[in-house]
Order: sequence, then structure tokens, then C-alpha cells
Amino acid sequence: MALLRAEDRFFGVFPYLVSPIAADGTVNRQVLADLVDHLIAAGVHGLTPLGSTGEFAYLDRDQKRDIVATVVEAAAGRVPVVAGVAANTTAEAVRQATEFVGLGVDGILAILEAYFPISDENVEAYFRAIAASVECPVVLYTNPQFQRSDLSLPVIASLADVPNVRYLKDASTNTGRLLSIMNLVGDRIRIFAASAHIPACVMMIGGVGWMAGPACLIPEQSVRLFDLCSAGHWTQAMTLQRMLWRVNQAFAKYSLAACIKGGLEIQGFPVGDPLAPQASLSEEGRDELARILRSLEAGGEGSVT
Amino acid sequence: MALLRAEDRFFGVFPYLVSPIAADGTVNRQVLADLVDHLIAAGVHGLTPLGSTGEFAYLDRDQKRDIVATVVEAAAGRVPVVAGVAANTTAEAVRQATEFVGLGVDGILAILEAYFPISDENVEAYFRAIAASVECPVVLYTNPQFQRSDLSLPVIASLADVPNVRYLKDASTNTGRLLSIMNLVGDRIRIFAASAHIPACVMMIGGVGWMAGPACLIPEQSVRLFDLCSAGHWTQAMTLQRMLWRVNQAFAKYSLAACIKGGLEIQGFPVGDPLAPQASLSEEGRDELARILRSLEAGGEGSVT
Amino acid sequence: MALLRAEDRFFGVFPYLVSPIAADGTVNRQVLADLVDHLIAAGVHGLTPLGSTGEFAYLDRDQKRDIVATVVEAAAGRVPVVAGVAANTTAEAVRQATEFVGLGVDGILAILEAYFPISDENVEAYFRAIAASVECPVVLYTNPQFQRSDLSLPVIASLADVPNVRYLKDASTNTGRLLSIMNLVGDRIRIFAASAHIPACVMMIGGVGWMAGPACLIPEQSVRLFDLCSAGHWTQAMTLQRMLWRVNQAFAKYSLAACIKGGLEIQGFPVGDPLAPQASLSEEGRDELARILRSLEAGGEGSVT
Amino acid sequence: MALLRAEDRFFGVFPYLVSPIAADGTVNRQVLADLVDHLIAAGVHGLTPLGSTGEFAYLDRDQKRDIVATVVEAAAGRVPVVAGVAANTTAEAVRQATEFVGLGVDGILAILEAYFPISDENVEAYFRAIAASVECPVVLYTNPQFQRSDLSLPVIASLADVPNVRYLKDASTNTGRLLSIMNLVGDRIRIFAASAHIPACVMMIGGVGWMAGPACLIPEQSVRLFDLCSAGHWTQAMTLQRMLWRVNQAFAKYSLAACIKGGLEIQGFPVGDPLAPQASLSEEGRDELARILRSLEAGGEGSVT
Repeated sequence: MALLRAEDRFFGVFPYLVSPIAADGTVNRQVLADLVDHLIAAGVHGLTPLGSTGEFAYLDRDQKRDIVATVVEAAAGRVPVVAGVAANTTAEAVRQATEFVGLGVDGILAILEAYFPISDENVEAYFRAIAASVECPVVLYTNPQFQRSDLSLPVIASLADVPNVRYLKDASTNTGRLLSIMNLVGDRIRIFAASAHIPACVMMIGGVGWMAGPACLIPEQSVRLFDLCSAGHWTQAMTLQRMLWRVNQAFAKYSLAACIKGGLEIQGFPVGDPLAPQASLSEEGRDELARILRSLEAGGEGSVT
Repeated sequence: MALLRAEDRFFGVFPYLVSPIAADGTVNRQVLADLVDHLIAAGVHGLTPLGSTGEFAYLDRDQKRDIVATVVEAAAGRVPVVAGVAANTTAEAVRQATEFVGLGVDGILAILEAYFPISDENVEAYFRAIAASVECPVVLYTNPQFQRSDLSLPVIASLADVPNVRYLKDASTNTGRLLSIMNLVGDRIRIFAASAHIPACVMMIGGVGWMAGPACLIPEQSVRLFDLCSAGHWTQAMTLQRMLWRVNQAFAKYSLAACIKGGLEIQGFPVGDPLAPQASLSEEGRDELARILRSLEAGGEGSVT
Repeated sequence: MALLRAEDRFFGVFPYLVSPIAADGTVNRQVLADLVDHLIAAGVHGLTPLGSTGEFAYLDRDQKRDIVATVVEAAAGRVPVVAGVAANTTAEAVRQATEFVGLGVDGILAILEAYFPISDENVEAYFRAIAASVECPVVLYTNPQFQRSDLSLPVIASLADVPNVRYLKDASTNTGRLLSIMNLVGDRIRIFAASAHIPACVMMIGGVGWMAGPACLIPEQSVRLFDLCSAGHWTQAMTLQRMLWRVNQAFAKYSLAACIKGGLEIQGFPVGDPLAPQASLSEEGRDELARILRSLEAGGEGSVT
Repeated sequence: MALLRAEDRFFGVFPYLVSPIAADGTVNRQVLADLVDHLIAAGVHGLTPLGSTGEFAYLDRDQKRDIVATVVEAAAGRVPVVAGVAANTTAEAVRQATEFVGLGVDGILAILEAYFPISDENVEAYFRAIAASVECPVVLYTNPQFQRSDLSLPVIASLADVPNVRYLKDASTNTGRLLSIMNLVGDRIRIFAASAHIPACVMMIGGVGWMAGPACLIPEQSVRLFDLCSAGHWTQAMTLQRMLWRVNQAFAKYSLAACIKGGLEIQGFPVGDPLAPQASLSEEGRDELARILRSLEAGGEGSVT
């Protein structure tokens, strides 16, 4: 494998942060800063505000800015912050990217929202415009089973030539697609798993980490899993992975933001509910999640050591 | 049919207005006002800014406000203005509705955007909150084949009991669904067709008109079609409908906003291109559309009279 | 409208017949013959065995042959019989078409089943091969929202030049697509509605009738609706249509074959259940259907005369 | 891991066999027998006729029987034969299963075809009926992204209690789903990968092998990959996996049956084209596949040893 370039400093576990919004619409900065401290103390390698779990689609301009500012300030340079940029227009995406870099983020997770379908050519133009507007590394976000317009493999291959397009996070469930992308772009783009992929598998095929909501709830175990994978201790990694996967299963079963916000409430972080009209985590979901989290604290630890 | 209630003043042809945005992101108020004058002179019965053709998903808060203010001012009470309200959160939808009513609109077209799926109960809560925030009539927007969360028939039936929920526009291609809704809600909710339905068919099954992008390009013919349908002259109506349908076919074939903006440019309204990264109308599309529009001006008129 | 050519003898109401199969897998010929007599006595204009309601996908070669033979024999030339031909391979489709023509059918409803996607070119080749294998008229079956490979508009336009490709039945819910097809092929191909379209609408835009399961349950009312439409009595037609549409709503809500078989059982035709593992009509479905059918017998008749 | 039970003899590489059909519709028994010999000589652990690559959806009763008989006879007990059973009706599935067991197969791959949606309860009944009709092990086939009705996780959990339901092959692209199933059923059901999953990943999470079309073209390399995975040599396994994945990429890009049949023709097995109206492998596809296969013969060997 090629030597790590200077900018290849994004790797490991990047929790997708939730966005705690008070009843009056303001960002609950204190709880977000507390969560950031907690996650860094647990050893995570980076932080991602404004991902899907961060309800990027539900926040206005001011809320987004305050979320990013709070995270950057709380992280205080201890770990890189990669903020989600998501828009329907190129102009708004560039505006967000520029603003977030001004606030001090270390990287951009670039997401294309679309109401009408967009051609490959225009999808590429959107991502190129974002990359050109910043100097920091850009993480391409792709989700072919969900987004109305998405990055095709030829477009990814072309974007791999943009110097600061350095990473890709695939939020589909299709792990094979990741290997196809790796075969296509080689070392030009590093791959992060999302919550729908089995992290240990993505690490084994050559990924560099994962950006995902569940890591908010199980940061220490996630870091341990990353360490086991990095060391090539696959048998131990899989023993842990099998248990941790139950969190991903709950995450997929219940609504993403609701699940992580509900789980953090259980853990003592008053992050509140998802923004209406989204539902909060159901009683049934809360019980199942609490059960899973308890079992991980107990058996999860013991059986891996 | 029941007597028209006082608030049943929305009927006929409501063009979905385009949103002309200058290169600096400001609204081109003059061309929008000119278009409004032109359409009212052609006899349209109302105007709908910020529908899908109006690129609601691509505009920011300021652009939306300026679009609505311009249309209300230009219409000057000559025809009702029904503005699109679309958001992922209830709070933002209520904010838009309140703002637009403050600007003088006569009705609200209520659209639910969703990133994550929403339960029926929460879909209903979203629309009820919008209706409760304004006194004007509300038009429900439904598009089960496109929106990530949509209005089910039971939810529509329940919302029909809200006094100011008075209309529904269905943007699917499923005309039978409109008759099912009519069978369900009777006179409590009046139905508008969208561009994917054949207007003459929707009128025949009991609809009250249509809200659609193509009416921007063919306002006079659309009004004539409405008059023929209203008078029960179905044979003449269908002769005209058959020709006008070619515009809807082009509209569906090429991207909605691109098609109407391109067509208006042909007709001398410098409304500009759709916002990037959306494509502008292709040369091929422009040629096809120009051909259709010319044929309507020529043969369309003659063969109907 | 052009003069009716000699072969334009398919029009009006063609019930999609159910396939009554005994527990031992044999066709219950008597009940099928009784149903044929009943429907012809009610005035239907033709009969279609082996449509989707006829569970074509669930029958083997022998069952299909016996169904067709029974219907041809029972119809005895009183009305045309148009049998469904459906296969994954061209060879099997041609075999079926040839066999059914040998049994005496008057036309073929040609359906393309597909496991893997098929290119436009090969879709066209499939239908051309069927048409070339018989002399009788062929009805193209298209369902773009359901079939894995389907007829695109360019392929339909090309097939319209095949002399015995004379009709098309669209089983999507997209009524506008029918008008687009009519605009494309003119008089070369006549259009039948399916159960997902509002028959009165399809008649008004220029259709020649409908092939659909519900007509099995309400043959007399269907024929009356056809007569009203043919005479241009659209107001009366719509009054009747509104009531009859409730049967189509039930048909769409419950499984097609289950709904029609359950309804015929209510009406005294022991046609049995759909083939396992398909479910039979639920108690709730049976109650709703019985209620609808009773209301049509009562109020339905009175209010139209 | 639990001790292997007597019936746990299915593991490793099971190529999905193609179905060579002559122009007159008969099975080309000689080429199929030659292919069987070739694959067994290459070390494969079992054979699967009548999978999706085997065009099960395109063959009639006689062709299916002859395919299975030929494979059983040619295999002559050297490796287990697991034949695909696929039907829309329970009766036909049971008939096929019984017939194939009578011909000597060692296991059944049970596939549910569906035209109309089937409830969970009836899906389960279908698979239980097949399992009850035979004594040999049954492999559940599931493909939630493709089949019209499919096995939900609760149904899989329930079927895991049927003694001879011993394996599952998931043909979706969702590798995480496999781990969820493993978490649910433990050792009661063993998991096979399909071609859309990365075999090395499925092995690492606990799978027992793969049933897939590409193994027809690269049997030796597939067996070597299996051996590396079984021995826990994950780094070497991934080096090989990365190269072999290019075959799966081509397989997904071009039509499955066309790709394998075209590849086998390149390798000197005159298996013919897929059945019409399916397309044969395009020139472009043939070139790409030939290039991949050559590169595997060359570099593929060397770099792993």
C-alpha cells in the first residue's frame, strides 16, 4: 500500500454527531460540547457533524452554522472535524463549504441533494465546484439506493483526479460496490464505511474506517474494533463485530436520528428528540436499544479481552 | 354538486410559475411581474409560485419570500395567489405559511419534504399544523410515486375534516387515485389535476381545475380547454386536449423546470436557466418544444373553433 | 375517427376470466363454462382467459390449454375470445400462441415475462415473433410500473407497423401514458383500459373498451357504462362510473385474483381459491366486497336510469 | 463454532451451472457433462444446476429434468449436487423437489417466484411445504432487492426450526443482512454468499462458502480463495479476492447468464447463448471478460503463491 500522504489523516472512527435542538430552535451547545468531549475521551479519531444522523436535511442555515461552530470549538483541534455539506444547488453547497471552513473544520463531507434527477455530467460539476471552493480534503458521500441522483462509478473515477477529493463514504448496503470503487480508484481515494456496512469487512477489503451514527453510542467499543482490525486480529475483531452489529441492526430498524438521540438520552445526554414531524424513538425501540447497550457493557467487554 | 361555498373560489387554470433567479442569486422581479401580467391577460384563474416547476427545493428563504412578494404585488388581487410551502420540519413549514400569508397570498399549497420516512400520524400532524397556522384555504399536495413520505387515503380523509383544508393536488400519474379520493371525501375537498394527469379527464370525473407548469406556456389554450370542459363540450375539449397533451409529454420528457424556463425564453421571457447543478433545456428539447408550441399556435387554434 | 377495419372487432367489455382449479390441479370446466354463459348473457363483448386475474403466472401448460379450450367451447363464437400468452422465452410464447389459435381463439394478449432485464431491441423481437406466428389480431400488454422489462413508447411505435398488432392494453395506473401512445400511433393501434384506469376516462380520450377483472363481477353495469360512454352521455356515465369504481378500489386493495374469485363465490360461482401460496380473500375483504356489490345492485341501478 | 453435524456437508465453492440448450430446445448433455468434469477436476465442492445463472426462469419442465439428470449423472457422487427449485405455486415447487430428489440430488435450493405479493405467512408455508416433501437439506434462497415476495428475517428465524432447512443463500447486495441473519439463527442455518457479496467478507463473518455463477469461469482460483479464507490467511485471501472481484463486476455489469455462457465459450465450452429474447454477451462484454480472465491466469496465479 502506498505511503500515507500528509492529508491522509482521516481514518478510524468518526461518529456521526446528532444535532441537539432546543424547543425554541436554538442549538443546545452545552450538550453537544459534552458529547464531543465524551467521544474524544473514548478515543474516536474524528467527528462528523451534519451527516444524515445529524438531521442535516432538517436544519436551517443558522442551526447548521451553530452546530459546526460548537463542534469545532469543543474539539479544539484534538481530532479532525469533517462537516456535512448538503444542498440542492451548487451555490448553496459552496456557501456552506466556505462557511464551515471559515469556522475551522478540517474536511468536508459532500452530499448532493436532488429534487429532480441530475445527469452524470452535472453531478460531477457539483462536486468539483465544492472541491474547488475549499483547500481541505473532501469526502464524497454516495448512496445509490437512496439519493435521487448519485455518483456513478465513472464519475467517482473522474473525481478521483481532483487533488483534494481524497475520501468516499458509501451509505448504501452494497459492500461489493466499495471493492469495485477501490479497484477503480486505487489509492487516490480512501474508503470509509457507513452504518449499513459491516465495519470489519470494509476494513478487511482496504477501508480506512467508518463514519456512522452508532459510534456515538458505542465509541470505546468502536475504537477497539478499529484497533483489532488495524492489527489484523480478525478473529477477535469478528467476535466483537458480531455483538456491535446489533446496534447497527437497531439503527436500521428504527429511524436513524431517533435511534441515536434516544440512545444518548439513555446514556445521560439530553439531546432531545428529532425535529418534528419526525417521530422520537418508540418505547419498544428504547427498550430494545437499552437492552443491547447493557449487553455490550457486560458481555461485550469480557468476551473480547 | 353542492353549492359553492364562499371559500370555494379556487378553480380553473393555475399556472405553476417559474422562479427567475439572476446570476447573483437575486430574484428577477421584472420578468416575473411581466409573466404574471401576461398570464392574467390570457385569462388564467390563479397563480401558483413555489411549486415543483418553481424549483421550491432549490431556493433559499430570501428568494422564496421575494418570489411570493413579487407575484402577490403583480397580481394585485386580480386572481388568487396560492403559494407553495415545502419543508422537512413542521416549524419551517409554519414559518413559511405565516410569512406568505403576511405577504398577501390567498392560499397555501402544502408540501411535505422528507429525508427519513414519516408515519401516517406524523404526516397528518404536519399538515394540521400548517392549516392551523393560517386562516386561508390549504391545498394538500400529494405525490405517492415521488415523495419519500406521502398522504395515504386515510390521512386525506381525516384531514378533510379540517375546515380550511379545502383542496388537493395530486402530482402522481395515477388518475384513478383521484377518483378514489373523491369517493372518499366527497365535497369536503376539491381536486386539482397536476401535469401528469390529463386535465380533461380530471375535469370529467369531478375536478375543479389544474395547477401545472405547462399552463405557463399555453395559458390561453388551457383556459379554453377549461371552458370547454366546464360547459360539458367533451368532444371539442378532447380535440384540444389531444394537441395540448404534447406539451405535457415534452414537460415529462425533459426536466420540468428546464422545460418551462426554456419554453418561456422561446416566448420572449428572459427567465434564465434552472439553478445549477440542474441542466438547462437541451438543444433537442428546445427544438421539440418550439415545434410543439408553433403547431399549437397554428393548427391548435383553427381546428377547435 | 377512421372507419373500422374488418379486424377491428375487439371493443367493449372483456372480463378477465378467473381460472378455477380443483384440488387435484385439474380445471373445473363446468364452473368456467357457467361463468362464460353468465357473462355473455350479461352482454359482455368478449372474454379474456389467462390475464393476470386469470393467474397465468401460476398455471402449467396443461391447465392453460384446458382453460382456453373450455372458454372457446363455451363461448361458441358468440363473442371473441382473446387469450393471454405469457412467457419468459420467445419459443414458449410462440408455442402458446400457436396452441391457443389451434384451439380457436380470436386474438392473443401478448405478455412478456422477464427474470433478467431485456433490451428494447429484444423486447420488440419477442412481440414480433408472437405476431408472426399467428394470423389473428395481437393485443400488446404493457405495465411499466410492474413488469421487469416493458414496452417503451418507441418500441410500441415500431410494433404498430406490424399488420396484426392491432391493440394495446396498459395495466399501469398512468392514464396519461395512454394518451401519449394514442398521439404516437394514431389509428394503427386501439387502446383498451385495464382495471387501474378509470374506464370512462379511457373511453373519452379515445379508447375502445376495457379488459379487466372487475367486469367478471359487474358485467351488466360494465356494459351499461360502455354504452353510456359510446353514446357520449358522459354525465350519466360518470354517475355510474363513480359507483363502479368502488369495485376497482377493492380490486386494487385486495389481491386481484383473490378478490375476483372471492366475489364470484359470493355470487354463487364455486371458482375456488387462488392457487397456493397465494392467499384467498380475507374475511374483511369478503365483507367489503359483498357490501359494495349489494350497494351496486340496489342504488347503482336506480340512480342511473 | 459448533461441531459439524452429519448433514453439514455443504460448504465451499458451488458453481451455479449454466443450462446449455440446443436450437431445438433439447439439453446439450455432452457439454454440460464436460463442464461438470472440468469443475470437479478444478476442486469445486459442489454443483448447483438451475440457479439464476442457470436460467431457471426460462426452462420448461423437461429441460429442467434433463439438466438435473445430466449433472447428477456426470457428478457421479464425487461432489454434492444442489438443484434449484423455483415456482409460483407450492404444488409445482413440491413436484420439482420430489422429481429432483428422485433423480439423485443431494440438496434443494428453494426459490419462491411470485407474480402477486405474498404475505409472510404464505411465504413461510411455501418453504415449509418444500422442506416437508424431501428428506435432503434445503437451502433457502433470498433476494429482498429483486424477488417480488421474499423471506423476512422473522420468517427465516421460524424456518430455521425446520430440521432439514439447513442453509441460506442471500442474493442481495446487502452483506450486513447476512450478519443480521447469523445473529438471529446462530448455527441452525449456514450461510452461503452469492455473486453480489464479496466471498472473503462472507467467509470472515462466518459463512461456509458461496454459490455463484463466476465460479464456473474461475473454479481453481475460487477454490484457492476458499482455502485461504478457511485457513484464516486473510491478507493473502484479500490479494486474490481483489483480482477475482473483477469477474463479479463484469458479471453484474453484463447479464448474468450471458456473461457466464459467453465466458465459457471463450474457455472452449460450447454452451451456446442464453435463451431468446435474452441477449448474448456483447462484443464489448466478451472483450472485457476475456481480458479479465487472461489477467487472472497470468498475474492472478503468480502474485498469490
